[in-house]
Amino acid sequence: MDTSKTDIFIKMAIDSWNTQNSRLSKLAETLTDEEMLNQIAPGKNTGVYLIGHLIAVNDGMLPLLGFGEKMFPEMEEPFLKNPDKIGWQKEIIGELKEKLQAVNNKLSQGIAAITTQGWLQRHTAVSETDFAKEPHRNKLNIIINRTNHMSYHLGQIALLKTRAQ
Amino acid sequence: MDTSKTDIFIKMAIDSWNTQNSRLSKLAETLTDEEMLNQIAPGKNTGVYLIGHLIAVNDGMLPLLGFGEKMFPEMEEPFLKNPDKIGWQKEIIGELKEKLQAVNNKLSQGIAAITTQGWLQRHTAVSETDFAKEPHRNKLNIIINRTNHMSYHLGQIALLKTRAQ
Repeated sequence: MDTSKTDIFIKMAIDSWNTQNSRLSKLAETLTDEEMLNQIAPGKNTGVYLIGHLIAVNDGMLPLLGFGEKMFPEMEEPFLKNPDKIGWQKEIIGELKEKLQAVNNKLSQGIAAITTQGWLQRHTAVSETDFAKEPHRNKLNIIINRTNHMSYHLGQIALLKTRAQ
Repeated sequence: MDTSKTDIFIKMAIDSWNTQNSRLSKLAETLTDEEMLNQIAPGKNTGVYLIGHLIAVNDGMLPLLGFGEKMFPEMEEPFLKNPDKIGWQKEIIGELKEKLQAVNNKLSQGIAAITTQGWLQRHTAVSETDFAKEPHRNKLNIIINRTNHMSYHLGQIALLKTRAQ
């Protein structure tokens, strides 16, 4: 009974992640090159930057969750450590869409394989000592926090569609 | 041990809700009247509409979670059932800020009082029959889903601040 309760919580968090991550994939697929190169609002981030940012964040989840090394460490510099820049070339867009799919495939494989007990283990950025005091800093918490972060930027990326003329 | 696991999950979901809801309150406090009346991007929703929308959604959580009736049912028509409109008057802004605080105070009281077992109970919009088949449609799931919904709009409302000239 209690294991099943734990499984229910895990399902809730994973369902929520999957919902938002699918929305991101669909949005990325339907955005035209021009929309991707646009700013979400005057003077704000471009679609290219935000999609790149979310790829870099998803990629960073792989080592945090113990699913392996980052696939695209080269995304860190332009999309995590630095703000958006002027003048993205549209050639980058196809590459971003491929990277998004690749990192999400690897994440999905990891998520499918992890056990109930595995979700309750500490993520790799928290020390054993800290985790003993703060057991909520587990792998499932990474999923919950990254789902919110993704939703935050999804709300912005959605502004690129059906822009009023 | 298993009860404590359940408590850890509940803490994760509530912490996440509290973080996003505090961000909303702080943003609402710091936005000037002019920023609130602005659109988040050309042709998109205004700050007034999005803050009103989130108040209406938070208000709807009260009956869903069994915390009582809606405090502001009059918010439903303009902020849930209808899209944004042109020409909000700035007089509404003070009223929105008060309603946001009031509904969040009542939500916080409810959240503080609900038991571990209470979070696992069905929310009031799911039937007993459906809940028997889908036990993840519990009260904590409302918190998880509404946290993502809030993050989505927070990312948009944040665009109203420090708008590039």
